Amino acid sequence: MSDIQTVRVDLAERGYDIEIGSGTLGGLPQFLRRRTDSDHAVIITDSTVDELYADDAGDLLVGEGWEVNVLVCDPGETSKSTEVADDLWNALLAEGADRKSIVVAMGGGVVGDLAGFVAATFARGLEFYQVPTTLLAQVDSSVGGKVGVNLPGAKNMVGAFWQPRGVLIDVEALHSLPDREYRAGLAEVVKYGVILDEALFAYLEQHVDAINGKDPAVLMHVVQRCCRLKADVVQQDERETTGLRAVLNYGHTYGHAFEALGQYEALLHGEAVAAGMRCAARLAARLGRIDAATVARQDALLDALRLTTPVPKADGQELVRLMYRDKKAAAGKLRFVLPTRIGHVELVGGVREEDILAALES
Amino acid sequence: MSDIQTVRVDLAERGYDIEIGSGTLGGLPQFLRRRTDSDHAVIITDSTVDELYADDAGDLLVGEGWEVNVLVCDPGETSKSTEVADDLWNALLAEGADRKSIVVAMGGGVVGDLAGFVAATFARGLEFYQVPTTLLAQVDSSVGGKVGVNLPGAKNMVGAFWQPRGVLIDVEALHSLPDREYRAGLAEVVKYGVILDEALFAYLEQHVDAINGKDPAVLMHVVQRCCRLKADVVQQDERETTGLRAVLNYGHTYGHAFEALGQYEALLHGEAVAAGMRCAARLAARLGRIDAATVARQDALLDALRLTTPVPKADGQELVRLMYRDKKAAAGKLRFVLPTRIGHVELVGGVREEDILAALES
Repeated sequence: MSDIQTVRVDLAERGYDIEIGSGTLGGLPQFLRRRTDSDHAVIITDSTVDELYADDAGDLLVGEGWEVNVLVCDPGETSKSTEVADDLWNALLAEGADRKSIVVAMGGGVVGDLAGFVAATFARGLEFYQVPTTLLAQVDSSVGGKVGVNLPGAKNMVGAFWQPRGVLIDVEALHSLPDREYRAGLAEVVKYGVILDEALFAYLEQHVDAINGKDPAVLMHVVQRCCRLKADVVQQDERETTGLRAVLNYGHTYGHAFEALGQYEALLHGEAVAAGMRCAARLAARLGRIDAATVARQDALLDALRLTTPVPKADGQELVRLMYRDKKAAAGKLRFVLPTRIGHVELVGGVREEDILAALES
Repeated sequence: MSDIQTVRVDLAERGYDIEIGSGTLGGLPQFLRRRTDSDHAVIITDSTVDELYADDAGDLLVGEGWEVNVLVCDPGETSKSTEVADDLWNALLAEGADRKSIVVAMGGGVVGDLAGFVAATFARGLEFYQVPTTLLAQVDSSVGGKVGVNLPGAKNMVGAFWQPRGVLIDVEALHSLPDREYRAGLAEVVKYGVILDEALFAYLEQHVDAINGKDPAVLMHVVQRCCRLKADVVQQDERETTGLRAVLNYGHTYGHAFEALGQYEALLHGEAVAAGMRCAARLAARLGRIDAATVARQDALLDALRLTTPVPKADGQELVRLMYRDKKAAAGKLRFVLPTRIGHVELVGGVREEDILAALES
């Protein structure tokens, strides 16, 4: 397939394109050349993606006359640390990177967030490109400019807003993704439908088999639509100051607590979000905001996409404590993003603890 | 003195004020309250300035109802490291800092650069205020938004552009500054005169005794004028992209090499810059850009302000190597900022090595 769909992200200072295709990874040198005069690329990746794609991508760039360094970190959330960022800063220095060098993140959300933070801060900021290879990164974390690393006990606590100069998405890369991670990414896809776009939700319902079979044309449409929706939100609230960006946290108040409960190891982020959306929909129904049929419709789509991670068993008090600790609880207030129908959500404060907990049970 | 002079810095996104007075440090709570709704201030300082000013400032803020944490690092350039930044990030987290907290840097250039970097990156960016207590910080490093830390062997290699919300300058603080540091700060003051403002240069010539005696009114005028000049440059080239900001590096190509030669210990930055300006003026004379009288006029002012650090003895090849290593040598080209007269400089490339070295001798 040579089709490429482009999502334009228009921001105050500078816009950029997200190019979505299938089998387009080999076009990385041309993608970069259309956007930069640099001839020194530092690819940051993890060892899994290095073997699959980054090593080859580096060779392609060398073949086009680039000076290339591939910096490889361990796979997994533990690499999103200040220590690994420090290692990367020193590696960039050792490789002779300067203000004219560019950073290319190739991998999932961890690699994108980590590489973006290093790009944002080395020599006060290098040009940054994203080549996301997981579904979660393609539809969510590679769009929007949030980059950063964790502190012990606090996710994403050190970071910046640093927009990429371009995002290259190849849905063919999803074929190498473990099934569990693919499913987890679908949770965020369903989320976009519920919060912003009933047409997308209906499309997902109608194309369950194609999605489960990773049909390229269907995947391209889905990824393109999610990127467009997220870009629309980001354009209106680039630095998370107006509150609009908060709608993206549907399912995340429960979800983050579920993740913390499992020490960020038991559940993938998307799995926790899927369980969180089930709870949030039940909470919305309890509060009379949606009917049982809407809850059932969301459940049915999650089931069909095999997002069937059960809601974790947890002590209610502990769970509420974790929700409050989450940094979305600005100034001690807990707010939920709740649907009023498929395709629309509202921010709801002042929810009673008994309702929060009852939604876990039903 | 209750006079306050204000320098407005107008930037694309947001402007801020630099308030310059004498004996005005006690007004910090009011200065902050006029600019923020926050009630949690994290003061970052070093142990010297903590004893002199920061501890008291913290008490003042507590008296006005603020929650205050004072984080104290060791004095000196070694604190401008990724390790100390990491310690401060974790300290902010431990003290419960969130997106509504503010960071106040109180001290010299090291503290301002370090605290600014921590403010730029904690929770993707906290409001930041500067209270510079050294002359160098008051006229130079606290203005312009460059923040950052060093990597081993590379100054300011990790950082950001992060503008303060306000800068509070109390020239009375200069009375507690060691004489050597005060003199070093005067080097940057002379620099502004040479590169941008003959009237300032003449004012310095006419007020040598008052400056050496730290007369408050004269100091306020000098600091205000330097801040205005730097703000004018920064407003036109906030992120150092147009090249205009490069004029601020007069004396710095030689100066940075002199600093590196002494392992950043033998010379203070300002001392190296003063020696560097003497060399740069001689280079300009050699190239026929200024006459001997202009060189002598600059020498005479530096002498009168007791900026008499001799040009370090060095192997010429080693010195040129250090100049090339300095990150100002973008893409391997060495450029000098050279005067055409007092009050005006130009960027000059393609200078022959024999001229660079000859200027050291004369």
